[in-house]
Amino acid sequence: MEHVTDYWVAARRHLLPPQARAVESLRKHGPLTRTDLADVTGYSRSTMTSVVNELEEIGIVVETGDGESTGGRRPRVVNFRRDYGYVIGVDMGATSLEVALADFSGAILERVLVPIDVREGPDITLAQVQRLALDQIRQHEVRPEQVLALGIGVPGPVEFASGVLNAPPIMPGWNRHPIRPFFREAFPNALVIVDNDVNVMALGELTAGAGISHDNWFFVKVGTGIGCGIVCGGQIYRGANGSAGDIGHICADKNGPTCHCGNVGCLEAIAAGPPIAARAAEAARAGRSRILAKYLEQGGGRLTAIEVGLAAEEGDKIANEIVRESGRAIGEVLASLVNFYNPSLILIGGGVSNIGLMFLSSIRSGIFSRSLPLATRNLRIDASPMREDAGVVGASALALTHVFADVRG
Amino acid sequence: MEHVTDYWVAARRHLLPPQARAVESLRKHGPLTRTDLADVTGYSRSTMTSVVNELEEIGIVVETGDGESTGGRRPRVVNFRRDYGYVIGVDMGATSLEVALADFSGAILERVLVPIDVREGPDITLAQVQRLALDQIRQHEVRPEQVLALGIGVPGPVEFASGVLNAPPIMPGWNRHPIRPFFREAFPNALVIVDNDVNVMALGELTAGAGISHDNWFFVKVGTGIGCGIVCGGQIYRGANGSAGDIGHICADKNGPTCHCGNVGCLEAIAAGPPIAARAAEAARAGRSRILAKYLEQGGGRLTAIEVGLAAEEGDKIANEIVRESGRAIGEVLASLVNFYNPSLILIGGGVSNIGLMFLSSIRSGIFSRSLPLATRNLRIDASPMREDAGVVGASALALTHVFADVRG
Repeated sequence: MEHVTDYWVAARRHLLPPQARAVESLRKHGPLTRTDLADVTGYSRSTMTSVVNELEEIGIVVETGDGESTGGRRPRVVNFRRDYGYVIGVDMGATSLEVALADFSGAILERVLVPIDVREGPDITLAQVQRLALDQIRQHEVRPEQVLALGIGVPGPVEFASGVLNAPPIMPGWNRHPIRPFFREAFPNALVIVDNDVNVMALGELTAGAGISHDNWFFVKVGTGIGCGIVCGGQIYRGANGSAGDIGHICADKNGPTCHCGNVGCLEAIAAGPPIAARAAEAARAGRSRILAKYLEQGGGRLTAIEVGLAAEEGDKIANEIVRESGRAIGEVLASLVNFYNPSLILIGGGVSNIGLMFLSSIRSGIFSRSLPLATRNLRIDASPMREDAGVVGASALALTHVFADVRG
Repeated sequence: MEHVTDYWVAARRHLLPPQARAVESLRKHGPLTRTDLADVTGYSRSTMTSVVNELEEIGIVVETGDGESTGGRRPRVVNFRRDYGYVIGVDMGATSLEVALADFSGAILERVLVPIDVREGPDITLAQVQRLALDQIRQHEVRPEQVLALGIGVPGPVEFASGVLNAPPIMPGWNRHPIRPFFREAFPNALVIVDNDVNVMALGELTAGAGISHDNWFFVKVGTGIGCGIVCGGQIYRGANGSAGDIGHICADKNGPTCHCGNVGCLEAIAAGPPIAARAAEAARAGRSRILAKYLEQGGGRLTAIEVGLAAEEGDKIANEIVRESGRAIGEVLASLVNFYNPSLILIGGGVSNIGLMFLSSIRSGIFSRSLPLATRNLRIDASPMREDAGVVGASALALTHVFADVRG
């Protein structure tokens, strides 16, 4: 391999399979000896030795110290050069925006959270992203050219290959808007990867949370909508059109309410934040719950799913029933998916997942009541341990994972 | 790489990743030049050149002729050595057994189908498999030592890693019975891979049928039960415990009949062969259909799903309604899985899938009525084109795929 003189050309090069596997393994396992690298990648020691030499020459990896000796000379440990490059992770919600600067090891150097209204459209929102990112790199004395990738999670369906949103219901003005070119001037060397927020949260848990030791599992986000990020063989699975995991419109009840999508009984018309709040407000107005009526009055005639959770914790029977039925409906749909997919882990996250322990236990009971024993034998069902961190960590990981991949910027 | 002198040690060696990728690519694409191999595997030309040399030395591949010239000397094409080894493919059903002998290119040299009763237990059934396989190799002058793998599809849930059945409902006596050791004496060099019949059928279509050009899709078998073989990234996906695709017990109707599993409204209690036949027999006995009554009488008081299909084709209204409702129920469950998995292809196979065009069109209409537009934009839903061949071709492919894999025999 010729010596690469142009640092920034090297940064975006397409790595050969053994090189990519070595980088991926260091990303996953941390510092390793060449022998360890050969073991985890399945390549021969001689191949891994030359791969490490190539990556050292490019500047991606560096020897960081001695490993444990098994008798003779202590083997050298290799790791990323943390300052080989930097990435920006962006977690965009309907009403909030979090931007983080991470180094090449994935360590987050800085993060900032600001309120936004994504309905103001792409021009205003993307300009905010860019301003926050430029502020961060300036503070850390990182040059724009050193930013090798931006990973952006957005609250809508994404056509992953092209990086555009596809008819997002809560993001007017964003349909098929080209996001990648926006950053070309400010970050000339950066690849821009756009993915939907649930995939990004799943990637966060896969990289640094509960998903590290699981190969086949999924992340369920319950918020304004209900979506699912699928991990297959240790990687985010996006399906034929990138729409995999869109479970909010699975039929949960043939006699249920009509959904905004036009179908009847969609899961998210029954168990997401808005129907939980609406059912509670209706009960409060009908005089069936004093506690819910109190929250309704405090909110000036509006209720949130979080308040329904609080009422349930205060012992309100109606609120409890609503939380329990919503959890159960989610669990019954997940039971079908457990039979189909046989995951070893389901993580539940998103704003509405925090409305009390009863919610999670109702989801669990819905799943176990309808899944096959073999499919649930080793199944864990937990709340997302990273909570709010999953998004921004996942977005940084999205950027890092694709720095060397063959995705057009 | 040292020269391998012992042919049969070489046969079962664990290949390094680039070697395995080269073999896999030749299996998928047929004869290729070294340059083509580098292109399809993503490795460098120099790596592929040495990999091909290694594989030639081991005896797995051989130069088979000239490729197309792009100006200079015509490049040499490499392919498998067809006689490097042989495999046995076994498609075991509840009442039939098909055994095939295939060469190393996957070409089937001989196949035989005999009636069996799988309930006679593993000793009798496996002895039949062995006898048929030994007959076949004798006819083709293949020595037992040249058989490198047996791939066996069975009609029950399989723990893939250990190759045993797990509480199979229609195979009494087979629960956790060790299948692999049975063949150790007759085929001392053979790896034995056991998988459930639906995965094997999916693998058949993936190897030589409609699935070749699709990465993410699934195969649905409708017979006595209903099951699904899932393909993820061009490979059979088995889930955390090997139970992935067990869709027969997904709830299709909360007010439906009780299933033999104890739950209410399972898909296979509504839409598999037995409930189709039972509903038709009931209608015949109640005097609601002359045509069904005729079949019931001909069958001595018994009806099959196939006969319900024939009655529907003869214009019987009740039979038509039963076929249509069963297809619709399957389609509605598949709609949920389409939203979750976003496949590009669904193949419908199994005995009951042949009960008329109305069945497939009802499945289609059930899927499209409840799936999201983005998820079905590029979705094809077809009858399995390989039909009865999918099982035995898939079983041979199962054997070939694992010859070099690190699965204990």
